[in-house]
Amino acid sequence: MEDVLIRVSEKVSLKDPVLVEGLPGVGNVGKLAADYLRERLPATPFATVHSKFLPPQVYVSEEGLIRLVSNDLSYWKAKKPDQRDIILLGGDYQGISPEGQYELTESVLQFVVKLGVKELYTLAGFAQGHLVETPRVLGAATSPARVEAMKKHGVVFSRNDPGGGLIGASGLFLGLGRLFGMEGVCLMGETSGYFVDPRGAEAVLQVLSAALHLDVDLSELETKAKEIDRIALKLHDAQEPRSAPSAERSREDLGYIG
Amino acid sequence: MEDVLIRVSEKVSLKDPVLVEGLPGVGNVGKLAADYLRERLPATPFATVHSKFLPPQVYVSEEGLIRLVSNDLSYWKAKKPDQRDIILLGGDYQGISPEGQYELTESVLQFVVKLGVKELYTLAGFAQGHLVETPRVLGAATSPARVEAMKKHGVVFSRNDPGGGLIGASGLFLGLGRLFGMEGVCLMGETSGYFVDPRGAEAVLQVLSAALHLDVDLSELETKAKEIDRIALKLHDAQEPRSAPSAERSREDLGYIG
Amino acid sequence: MEDVLIRVSEKVSLKDPVLVEGLPGVGNVGKLAADYLRERLPATPFATVHSKFLPPQVYVSEEGLIRLVSNDLSYWKAKKPDQRDIILLGGDYQGISPEGQYELTESVLQFVVKLGVKELYTLAGFAQGHLVETPRVLGAATSPARVEAMKKHGVVFSRNDPGGGLIGASGLFLGLGRLFGMEGVCLMGETSGYFVDPRGAEAVLQVLSAALHLDVDLSELETKAKEIDRIALKLHDAQEPRSAPSAERSREDLGYIG
Amino acid sequence: MEDVLIRVSEKVSLKDPVLVEGLPGVGNVGKLAADYLRERLPATPFATVHSKFLPPQVYVSEEGLIRLVSNDLSYWKAKKPDQRDIILLGGDYQGISPEGQYELTESVLQFVVKLGVKELYTLAGFAQGHLVETPRVLGAATSPARVEAMKKHGVVFSRNDPGGGLIGASGLFLGLGRLFGMEGVCLMGETSGYFVDPRGAEAVLQVLSAALHLDVDLSELETKAKEIDRIALKLHDAQEPRSAPSAERSREDLGYIG
Repeated sequence: MEDVLIRVSEKVSLKDPVLVEGLPGVGNVGKLAADYLRERLPATPFATVHSKFLPPQVYVSEEGLIRLVSNDLSYWKAKKPDQRDIILLGGDYQGISPEGQYELTESVLQFVVKLGVKELYTLAGFAQGHLVETPRVLGAATSPARVEAMKKHGVVFSRNDPGGGLIGASGLFLGLGRLFGMEGVCLMGETSGYFVDPRGAEAVLQVLSAALHLDVDLSELETKAKEIDRIALKLHDAQEPRSAPSAERSREDLGYIG
Repeated sequence: MEDVLIRVSEKVSLKDPVLVEGLPGVGNVGKLAADYLRERLPATPFATVHSKFLPPQVYVSEEGLIRLVSNDLSYWKAKKPDQRDIILLGGDYQGISPEGQYELTESVLQFVVKLGVKELYTLAGFAQGHLVETPRVLGAATSPARVEAMKKHGVVFSRNDPGGGLIGASGLFLGLGRLFGMEGVCLMGETSGYFVDPRGAEAVLQVLSAALHLDVDLSELETKAKEIDRIALKLHDAQEPRSAPSAERSREDLGYIG
Repeated sequence: MEDVLIRVSEKVSLKDPVLVEGLPGVGNVGKLAADYLRERLPATPFATVHSKFLPPQVYVSEEGLIRLVSNDLSYWKAKKPDQRDIILLGGDYQGISPEGQYELTESVLQFVVKLGVKELYTLAGFAQGHLVETPRVLGAATSPARVEAMKKHGVVFSRNDPGGGLIGASGLFLGLGRLFGMEGVCLMGETSGYFVDPRGAEAVLQVLSAALHLDVDLSELETKAKEIDRIALKLHDAQEPRSAPSAERSREDLGYIG
Repeated sequence: MEDVLIRVSEKVSLKDPVLVEGLPGVGNVGKLAADYLRERLPATPFATVHSKFLPPQVYVSEEGLIRLVSNDLSYWKAKKPDQRDIILLGGDYQGISPEGQYELTESVLQFVVKLGVKELYTLAGFAQGHLVETPRVLGAATSPARVEAMKKHGVVFSRNDPGGGLIGASGLFLGLGRLFGMEGVCLMGETSGYFVDPRGAEAVLQVLSAALHLDVDLSELETKAKEIDRIALKLHDAQEPRSAPSAERSREDLGYIG
């Protein structure tokens, strides 16, 4: 079969669209943010990505219906003059091997460049290893101009973080994107790395909304965040060093990679 | 070499055939069911699947003859007006890598779609982690109509099971099958997951026989099931936590994947 | 690069040649036998096999000269009317992944079939897990006639061994060879599996020499075998359960696969 | 995408250039040497190698700018009649799988052969497992003449080292290089293998400078080496068996392979 198969359900014509990527990763911050945004805009699904570089797996819905794991593209058309058309990339998994990461990322880039994408925002989490009350958004970008622009939205460009660079889709989309002539920014919401973290996603979406002039109500993310806070608090109160199993029960699949 | 090589030993012409897949997996339920069905119908072998995505292994018969590991297709022609032609897929292994799973499944689908297959039944086990006296058959399907049809045959569509979805051939055949325009059902016989489980296979075949109007005598599966019951009982009576080695001696190779 | 690169140093024209394969594996029996045979016939190297499915490694000779790891083909022309031309396959490694095993084996078969090979002997070790004083030669073959022919040379075809089949090149050459219309035999010299075992190689070569009417002086293998015996004895006398490290120092690289 | 993508930023015309390879490995000796040489000559970057056989990773600079991991080629033109044009190969990683090693090495060789490269120097470390005060440079070469030539520069060709051969890029460039008709030498600076080792790099560059008639001031490597010495001494003085974590903090990423 084709290594990466992109099935288009609707032919779309977009005006200078920006790609926003949010796949599973650290604290699931990127995926939470992208999924929330898709629901809230709302964005319309128009293409599905299947690949042998994703797990050989189907999900089963509560109604008993199967769905092959995939990445998914949806679009949203600008409503106001200061807004831009958006293509959202979400999905169940990142590529499950280094080669698969490259192949998937390159295939999606090849696809969206034809739709006119010249700019990327990639959304991710940044694991701090401890609870983070008010997550900052760390950044990485393809050009000094973009670094400066993001700083105005409160994004932190730290000399030391992320020290080892970015591993996975959020970095690779920027790195390979440059080979396609694209520019972009990675927004990393701070998170403990222990839980699915809606608050990290909220922080990331605040920056993205400001940058793209979107009016997105983030209150439900805040609600979800408070739930997780309560769980975290309980775990903390229990004061047991071996509380990990309980934590695990309350978190979703975090994916395997940053 | 070709990644997947399908060698046809007999050219067959079938009428609206249904594909029934049963490869090694949890409790070997799917393979046991498919192998039993092939013997009982009986179905006639007509194609062999070799692939570099299978282990580099040959089996040696009691007579000293080697046989390269493979997947195998056999067919059965309907005998009565309410029956349908069947293609059975069995084999020694599933693909031994995620990519191999995709490649093998896609190659077989590509092959059978040319033979007119538009509908699939995939047979599998569902590991409960404890002994199951009267295994239910859980289901997953590609359409609500199929869910309803299977419910009439006693198949259980649970809101929560299988929670993590299906990993491996039985799910992938349905998931990729949809990309070929095929519809289908996965039938999962409950099993402990500790033993090869003929009773899970029996449960699955009862549903399949009803759905496809087959007259298949399942008594030998029941006999095999009782043997396993006896072994399980002995192990239970021994009440030793370290009884695993004995159990291992009495079970066949379970394959590596659900 | 090409996945498998066969570099021919001499164009050879052979008459109904038989392929004898001996690559590293259990007790290094197959490799020892093939290397010994090449030296003794002697066979003339005529082709080298390089591949990305071998380790990315060069060996360095005592003179400081590098040599890229490879498999190697050499030939020997029959000297007497009852003998046949032989192509010997030896080498440093088997393919280091399942897919690599298939690709390498298939490439060599594709190459030798053009040289007229229709028959194969594959040489291997059979690990017994305990010291074997007088190793038998176990067999597996592609046809009942070959089983019978080998029995006349003392080869044992056991109902139960090898129970799990053959994994690796020796089995795969026979299994894939059949897809090329080739027939053949695998000769497995019994060995402990703990040491490089010249005695297992000797046993295998005795059968092969008889089958192919070769006059090969096996005395040096016997000498090597006695050296290993002495080491084994010492280890046994030491009667220390942790004698493994010493053993390791005295054995060569055994390869990774049977 | 292409498995290996070489992007040329400047078309260069060189006269009988020699390729000098120094990628991450044991003690990072090869990479340190190549990076130092590039800075000191200085050599001009003219091509970047991206590949799915490198990790799916971007680095982030102190300014917040991302850079996709890569291998990199730079050139230097001879300044004196006894010098030769040089192409330097450095980078962030070696290929992260055996197949990737072959693919990357072969792609670079294919590229540089077109630029006229017929000779290679590969730089590496040789792990001794203990601190080495005055590192020797061990050698391996493609021809007896080169062995003799290198001996004149003090390179040691040991009968026993490296016993298991060379694994990774430095060996593979020589091994595959021969298939391109290239000759060459591997220079291995002795190192403990525990630290990034500028002194090993210094030793290697002394030989290389002599062989290629380069005037390279090695004093900064000596300075770096003394820093590492101090750290090593401190660790030694602390005399704690568990001093590894401190050591780790002071060393850079060593890469994964020799």
